[in-house]
Amino acid sequence: MSKLSVVIWNENVHEQVNADVKKIYPHGIHYAIAEGVRSRDSDGLLEVSTATLEQPEHGLSEERLEKTDVLFWWGHRAHGEVDDKIVDRVQQRVLAGMGLVVLHSAHFSKIFKRLMGTSCALKWREAGERERLWVVNPGHPIVRGIGKCVELENAEMYGEPFGIPTPDEQVFISWFEGGEVFRSGCCWMRGNGKIFYFRPGHETYPVFHNAQIHQILYNAALWAAPQGAWDDVMNARNVSVEKAREKIRKKGVSLHSENEEGFK
Amino acid sequence: MSKLSVVIWNENVHEQVNADVKKIYPHGIHYAIAEGVRSRDSDGLLEVSTATLEQPEHGLSEERLEKTDVLFWWGHRAHGEVDDKIVDRVQQRVLAGMGLVVLHSAHFSKIFKRLMGTSCALKWREAGERERLWVVNPGHPIVRGIGKCVELENAEMYGEPFGIPTPDEQVFISWFEGGEVFRSGCCWMRGNGKIFYFRPGHETYPVFHNAQIHQILYNAALWAAPQGAWDDVMNARNVSVEKAREKIRKKGVSLHSENEEGFK
Amino acid sequence: MSKLSVVIWNENVHEQVNADVKKIYPHGIHYAIAEGVRSRDSDGLLEVSTATLEQPEHGLSEERLEKTDVLFWWGHRAHGEVDDKIVDRVQQRVLAGMGLVVLHSAHFSKIFKRLMGTSCALKWREAGERERLWVVNPGHPIVRGIGKCVELENAEMYGEPFGIPTPDEQVFISWFEGGEVFRSGCCWMRGNGKIFYFRPGHETYPVFHNAQIHQILYNAALWAAPQGAWDDVMNARNVSVEKAREKIRKKGVSLHSENEEGFK
Amino acid sequence: MSKLSVVIWNENVHEQVNADVKKIYPHGIHYAIAEGVRSRDSDGLLEVSTATLEQPEHGLSEERLEKTDVLFWWGHRAHGEVDDKIVDRVQQRVLAGMGLVVLHSAHFSKIFKRLMGTSCALKWREAGERERLWVVNPGHPIVRGIGKCVELENAEMYGEPFGIPTPDEQVFISWFEGGEVFRSGCCWMRGNGKIFYFRPGHETYPVFHNAQIHQILYNAALWAAPQGAWDDVMNARNVSVEKAREKIRKKGVSLHSENEEGFK
Repeated sequence: MSKLSVVIWNENVHEQVNADVKKIYPHGIHYAIAEGVRSRDSDGLLEVSTATLEQPEHGLSEERLEKTDVLFWWGHRAHGEVDDKIVDRVQQRVLAGMGLVVLHSAHFSKIFKRLMGTSCALKWREAGERERLWVVNPGHPIVRGIGKCVELENAEMYGEPFGIPTPDEQVFISWFEGGEVFRSGCCWMRGNGKIFYFRPGHETYPVFHNAQIHQILYNAALWAAPQGAWDDVMNARNVSVEKAREKIRKKGVSLHSENEEGFK
Repeated sequence: MSKLSVVIWNENVHEQVNADVKKIYPHGIHYAIAEGVRSRDSDGLLEVSTATLEQPEHGLSEERLEKTDVLFWWGHRAHGEVDDKIVDRVQQRVLAGMGLVVLHSAHFSKIFKRLMGTSCALKWREAGERERLWVVNPGHPIVRGIGKCVELENAEMYGEPFGIPTPDEQVFISWFEGGEVFRSGCCWMRGNGKIFYFRPGHETYPVFHNAQIHQILYNAALWAAPQGAWDDVMNARNVSVEKAREKIRKKGVSLHSENEEGFK
Repeated sequence: MSKLSVVIWNENVHEQVNADVKKIYPHGIHYAIAEGVRSRDSDGLLEVSTATLEQPEHGLSEERLEKTDVLFWWGHRAHGEVDDKIVDRVQQRVLAGMGLVVLHSAHFSKIFKRLMGTSCALKWREAGERERLWVVNPGHPIVRGIGKCVELENAEMYGEPFGIPTPDEQVFISWFEGGEVFRSGCCWMRGNGKIFYFRPGHETYPVFHNAQIHQILYNAALWAAPQGAWDDVMNARNVSVEKAREKIRKKGVSLHSENEEGFK
Repeated sequence: MSKLSVVIWNENVHEQVNADVKKIYPHGIHYAIAEGVRSRDSDGLLEVSTATLEQPEHGLSEERLEKTDVLFWWGHRAHGEVDDKIVDRVQQRVLAGMGLVVLHSAHFSKIFKRLMGTSCALKWREAGERERLWVVNPGHPIVRGIGKCVELENAEMYGEPFGIPTPDEQVFISWFEGGEVFRSGCCWMRGNGKIFYFRPGHETYPVFHNAQIHQILYNAALWAAPQGAWDDVMNARNVSVEKAREKIRKKGVSLHSENEEGFK
């Protein structure tokens, strides 16, 4: 069995310009995530690599995406700098079957807003307060090896209402010291692709050095991996009258010529 | 109680350029839909008007949308000509609470693809074949007054897989003479707004002169009407540490200044 | 338009045997709920009555249920004393279209477990701690007139995981002083009937004297009211070959005789 | 890695008493299913065995169920003869994590009705007509290796409305020669367990000798296998005030003594 190809994408901006962030993530958040995911992979199931905004095509060429099974997405300050063409490409790849794991402030990334269709808005507060992520779905593969909850001593607060479609599966709900709650782990299927949004991760706290978080991200990579067929999903295909499964004859007038593609 | 404001939007293109279509819908499809919906409204609950692509701002100015409770959308040939700014505006209005009824070939409209986040693709065949829309949810308000199914003697076929997120509620599934099936009536909630996709409606068949279809569209207008609060949904709002519901003190460093808006 | 018939059902046991409870709810919890719901009904839309365990057929005769639009259910200590025949009757009525509002400790009632099919288990703690119910779905009709959250100064804690199917719509999530979270307001459709589970309500706290709780219960009664057709939903009906919508002829052997009912 | 334990359960009644059925399934339907599933298991991932109604405890002792990863359920004529204690046991095991694959007429089995909470009713016709199961979710693991649809030349018709909760995922929708449609492949999660309902399978047609059906059942066994933790799910557990995650002190009066179990 070939390994799953996992790509950790990061805009990699705050780590360059903010000394506090640089101290916590000297090689960038993508590096810490990649190391963390690898650290749980004692079975050698994954091939983990990274990509960043400043690379040509943001490191996400067609060739590379075609070989990617699961893409992790970290963005915050530079959402607006991501090229719409790359967003189109990632969206099509997710709909065809690639898994996508969306982290923390990437709730406002172009690709997440595109796939959700909603505002993806929330409330927030930067007070370094305590967060407790409760497992609400204890049999879910994403919480394998995690106990009843994960406690983070310092976290940025995200509060409801979170502007998302009702998740297909709710995995975590967070409690915050300051009095709020948040749907912190949410699963959706879109087209053939699985999407996991996971809340923790502010740049100024060492969240991505936490072993439980590593385990969850590793589990998420396995969960989001494509399990079925890949498909060309974007086009409307004409079925000619002759090729109907049941014998029919054409009645009435037509707008379209045979084998024409649908208007888009 | 004031009436619900319902706007029927139509690109109104095929009716101008195709003689077959013009014969069936001499005043445009929007006119036939508006008349049909009004014909069921013996209780006088609705105020129905129309808007078309060629009008300034496609007939959907901010002032007008602000007073619109439910918007019907018909498009086919001219999806690409709809201004992205108007699509943004309609999306925000739906997320804030406006109902949206999406008809037939508008599965590929910009606004529907935007709200779904998926391909919205399907298979199709123009053979004037028989379609039977089965009610799979007999207690749903959208099928009030409709029996077990609706039969259309001539229809364009749409076939699965239909590239949509799993509907919150499935109302109709269609059977086609040529051997296919399709999820023909689907409900979603996105933000505060309700969305109904309804399949029937090719330009070359008199679908919008059918009394059962009128009843379903009327029911859909009532169902999609906003029932709760309206809200500013697009922004991430900062909650200052002082205003936390539970007393907390700030710990650690910050990336943001107080009351700053989230990066987008 | 005739009024909606709302019946508040209560086992009415703790109020009889526990002095603390009797002091808070001298006429029973059902009385407090009925009064509270009526107090919000300035439009006179509802006809509210009560029923209790000790009445013949628990106050839920076939005749009465047949005229009931929405049933509220409070139970705690005497779940096991509810007659299975009445549970069958209520279930069938819900599937046919009656709304059901399930309160607090009724998570373990026979009727709720029957309709969910799951454990309906949870964690709990009686410490009189603070609870904050956050609105996660601000456009939902159940939160009409409620702001961003409801605060209860003294509440019994319920904690996740809550053993329920994924709700169709999540309306509230609770924060507890002691560190837990809970899905406190959940909507499902089962058959033609709408179900709302609402968490607050321990017998030793005056939760049902709170005006915001009254408003939510009133909203829930309107939301859960049947909006479409009522139906005989429990049986498998044979469709004879002659009555097929498309002309077919019988092929192969049969197990059943014509118009036989399905095995059950 | 140890093999997945798959048990095929069959009431095994029609095969004994009906000559037509006996000719098609001389060793019983369970035998044909077990052979079919094994035939696709070239990777040797499964350990497949069978159990029948007439065995002690219907072949489903606690010891055996404890080692079972996925249970297939075939029943039709003898639903009422299944012991409620065994139904309780299977339900608890599913909620704790065991997969369940429910076949054809088992839509009316006690265990399926128990887990769904709904009528599970449908329409039916025995005419040996053509059925076409369309794949509506082409990336789903259950349709791996299946093309766009499965055609069965002779099938019993099942028609909508099907009295089930909205499926979490829709995999197949069927087209019938006589004009009906049906949601033929449906997925739910209940507790920690995955449930798949699959429609085909009348006793008088050789459906379980079809290689595509074998492939789907094999895929379903892999899909339904537990992927996460197993859990004691049925009880409400008290969390003592001292063990609260956040330091709190008890306020107000109590109904319960410490560590008492919730009323059931």
